[in-house]
Amino acid sequence: MADTNEPTQAPTPPPETPTEAEAKGPSKNELKKRAKEAEKAKKAAEKAARQAELEAQKAAAEVDFAAEFYGKLPLNQSQSRPRQPRAKIADLNPNMDGQTVLLRARVQTSRAQGSKMVFLNLRQRTDSVQALLIIAPEKVSKQMLKWASSIQDESIVLVEGVVQKSPDIIKSATVGDVELHLSKIYLISGLTTRLPFTVEDAARPDAEIDASEDVQYKRVLLDTRLNNRVIDLRTITNQAIFRLQHAVGHLFRDYLESKGFIEIHSPKLQGAATESGASVFQVSYFKGKAFLAQSPQLAKQMAIAADFERVYEIGPVFRAEDSNTHRHMTEFIGLDLEMAIEEHYHEVMETLDDLFKTIFSGLRDKYKKEIDAVQRQFPAEEFKWREGPEGTLRFTFADAVDLLVADGVPREKLDDIDTENEKRLGRIVKAKYDIDYYIIDKFPMALRPFYTMPDPNDPTLSNSYDFFMRGEEILSGAQRIHDPDLLAENMIKKGVPPESMSFYLDAFKLGCPPHGGGGIGLERVLMLFLKLGNIRRASLFPRDPKRLEP
Amino acid sequence: MADTNEPTQAPTPPPETPTEAEAKGPSKNELKKRAKEAEKAKKAAEKAARQAELEAQKAAAEVDFAAEFYGKLPLNQSQSRPRQPRAKIADLNPNMDGQTVLLRARVQTSRAQGSKMVFLNLRQRTDSVQALLIIAPEKVSKQMLKWASSIQDESIVLVEGVVQKSPDIIKSATVGDVELHLSKIYLISGLTTRLPFTVEDAARPDAEIDASEDVQYKRVLLDTRLNNRVIDLRTITNQAIFRLQHAVGHLFRDYLESKGFIEIHSPKLQGAATESGASVFQVSYFKGKAFLAQSPQLAKQMAIAADFERVYEIGPVFRAEDSNTHRHMTEFIGLDLEMAIEEHYHEVMETLDDLFKTIFSGLRDKYKKEIDAVQRQFPAEEFKWREGPEGTLRFTFADAVDLLVADGVPREKLDDIDTENEKRLGRIVKAKYDIDYYIIDKFPMALRPFYTMPDPNDPTLSNSYDFFMRGEEILSGAQRIHDPDLLAENMIKKGVPPESMSFYLDAFKLGCPPHGGGGIGLERVLMLFLKLGNIRRASLFPRDPKRLEP
Repeated sequence: MADTNEPTQAPTPPPETPTEAEAKGPSKNELKKRAKEAEKAKKAAEKAARQAELEAQKAAAEVDFAAEFYGKLPLNQSQSRPRQPRAKIADLNPNMDGQTVLLRARVQTSRAQGSKMVFLNLRQRTDSVQALLIIAPEKVSKQMLKWASSIQDESIVLVEGVVQKSPDIIKSATVGDVELHLSKIYLISGLTTRLPFTVEDAARPDAEIDASEDVQYKRVLLDTRLNNRVIDLRTITNQAIFRLQHAVGHLFRDYLESKGFIEIHSPKLQGAATESGASVFQVSYFKGKAFLAQSPQLAKQMAIAADFERVYEIGPVFRAEDSNTHRHMTEFIGLDLEMAIEEHYHEVMETLDDLFKTIFSGLRDKYKKEIDAVQRQFPAEEFKWREGPEGTLRFTFADAVDLLVADGVPREKLDDIDTENEKRLGRIVKAKYDIDYYIIDKFPMALRPFYTMPDPNDPTLSNSYDFFMRGEEILSGAQRIHDPDLLAENMIKKGVPPESMSFYLDAFKLGCPPHGGGGIGLERVLMLFLKLGNIRRASLFPRDPKRLEP
Repeated sequence: MADTNEPTQAPTPPPETPTEAEAKGPSKNELKKRAKEAEKAKKAAEKAARQAELEAQKAAAEVDFAAEFYGKLPLNQSQSRPRQPRAKIADLNPNMDGQTVLLRARVQTSRAQGSKMVFLNLRQRTDSVQALLIIAPEKVSKQMLKWASSIQDESIVLVEGVVQKSPDIIKSATVGDVELHLSKIYLISGLTTRLPFTVEDAARPDAEIDASEDVQYKRVLLDTRLNNRVIDLRTITNQAIFRLQHAVGHLFRDYLESKGFIEIHSPKLQGAATESGASVFQVSYFKGKAFLAQSPQLAKQMAIAADFERVYEIGPVFRAEDSNTHRHMTEFIGLDLEMAIEEHYHEVMETLDDLFKTIFSGLRDKYKKEIDAVQRQFPAEEFKWREGPEGTLRFTFADAVDLLVADGVPREKLDDIDTENEKRLGRIVKAKYDIDYYIIDKFPMALRPFYTMPDPNDPTLSNSYDFFMRGEEILSGAQRIHDPDLLAENMIKKGVPPESMSFYLDAFKLGCPPHGGGGIGLERVLMLFLKLGNIRRASLFPRDPKRLEP
């Protein structure tokens, strides 16, 4: 089964520098002495060469006793199924001391120590363990060691080894209290190209790179990462980020299902460019055209008119905005919900608030390991929210404006709160309350889309709210207009021709309960909770105006 | 609070037909007698008119004692929040006999019985109950009764009433053992347009329409339904169908999460038209173009190369095929999964099989009410699968061909099994085994996409499978090629230029574990499990080459 691995690049030895004495030139005695030594060395070398030749002959004649214990496996085309149990690195622990396990893993790094030992760092998802291969009679041969030390980083291997309690905690591995003493090592999948960067480099915190003086650490830029996303995603950090992305969706669904919501799937292909404001992508549709939905807004409202009462959707939303910022993508995942109202739109706002608090505490309580893993690369102050009986911080838009004015922003600049002032408000709230999560209620009608329900007492205000995390908006929502006449009137006011959306208007002509909802950007929640600094880090394969691949 | 409802259309009285006697002409005595009677009638009419006028004056003077108990509510703009508990029709039961409840519901039908009573059929999602409004001193006035009887079908009302055990089961309601005796009834949302069809008509089984002789039931055609989908979706049948759609997704996720899978979200916007075969939609992307993903195939495989090990995705997939059949849509929901293989691709096939059986039994065991509701409109033989230790029926493609040949299909026509033969095979299997669910393994390589792993022993075969329900394919899957050289070779063979998908190929050059997976059409599973006959019935707002709205 022994076979050679892909050729590795041997490290180039450092250039030899002449000593000071040599630079001066040698004396006569010195020269004699050297000649004698050279003669001696020549003889010794000849002897060594003869001996080496003999040994080589001997080795060639000698069968490698470990030949079956290592080498490249044939391409797995599902030829056999011995059903041997495979272990998980995450499950390895000191109680398994002495047990033999079989597992498939990535080789993150391998390095030979002297001529008798190879250390390997083996990785699976968010976990890694140290493995050792040590020369031993009848078990591990020189050839086996040589082959193992030549395995390229990021190769996939199948190893068999004995779990051994580690006397000291191994810091370079996430499972630090055991190590694996290997008895077999096979190559499942090697590399046929050079790594654009190492997974170790990709996982290093910026602070460590900044602080490094002796070692010249390589900084892997975001664009390089995204161009080579498959390697970048292999870092324990990214494995943890996407497990947390999964967790947010899971917690979102679990909470809503416990409250009687059902999941819907609304079409992304639309016959007309809907909603005002954001731009839409146009699609060639057979002999005509279609548009990509910029939110499930209309569909989820129609689901309410169709009596589904409480619905949610998790799906892509598309924005044809040429925004190249840290928080915009042309495609992202919308977590949307819509529900019928019995009495007051605060029922919806409070459901959303409860939902967010459930997500935050769910992440904190059930995903500590993953959050810690991300924090190792992206250290951040812990995300804070109010859990106590005093409830989530809520401001009206007018309150928020006052807070900004008190902080020195001219009131006349606050018809709207722009991104800059949003962040400023975040800092004000953080300084005053030490809280990263709050709600702003009662936005001016002028700032909201046509389907927003006006305030019953002040028509310049609306029954709408935004939710914020660390000073950035993560949810926008409102009570919607369910009366077709008022809706048509508002469409005209906002410059949307009612006839362009007749199927939507018709839904309300057929009777519709009062309702409200909101839309959450999944990647934004993840970015802000973890403070990743760029939304692309929270998206598996991000799309922006300049990126459509991989 | 009393106000008038939207005007309703009074039914036109049938034209009066003359009696036989009148047609002959009357005698002299008869005429005298009639004149006398006419005089008498005239006097009586005058008296009645005077009395009516008096009563009207009296009524006008008299305050309607029930005025506060009915009428149209103002537009709900969230003016107050009394926090009155609202009941659910589904929760009403005989143990609540005598309790007063408040609830919001649709009026499916209302009809006056004599001048003292109005019957209403009230509906919420998949549930309905009979409500009565009976004239009673100081409680329900004539005016209130008249107003209530004028409420248009499909209006939304808020009612207060006392739950009363019903002596007989009320067949016209799903909650048949109680009725509601109303004390208050308010209009929350009325209709400002005519109903295109009634919800009762939309919910009627075809068989009942076919069998009807006396009554001329209106048949609501699929296209009419889809054009007016918001009304159509209100039927209890459709409420149940989409609760079952939700259930399939829920069971899919639950099962996979219990097996260590994580959910991913891959981009639908792609830089290049990927995969051969099916056509893709083109999107205008700023100054360039993009394409809509026709499956998450490439992304989920790249996620495996990125070490996620086991991933699933629920999301829209787009097919630009001009197919106008009962089972094709241009956009549908793909339930996709991909997993690393340890030894053999049957690990994947068995995971998928286990997944399906979990979905089937989950639907049967937890959603009986919904399945029964659908069956009332779409009666179907119960879906059958093997649960026992003998396991799911599996055939190789060669076995399937033999079965068809034995049934009379010429072997030379069976290089592929087309839709017609697929259904024929379904009938053969059903007749032979009384089973609606089976797997066909080992498809010829020629029939599968370029990324399919060939069989290790016979390169004309592949490590791939399809799953079937009631003779229609619902899943296609395979082991994938994880070796970049073999992959490139196969791309060339299948006419896909490797350079057109370099980012995909690169993922495998960086080392990738053996892996496999499959893609399931959500709507197909639902359509076939329930035997709905048309995939559009399993899609909230279906999209096909001719339909982009609503």
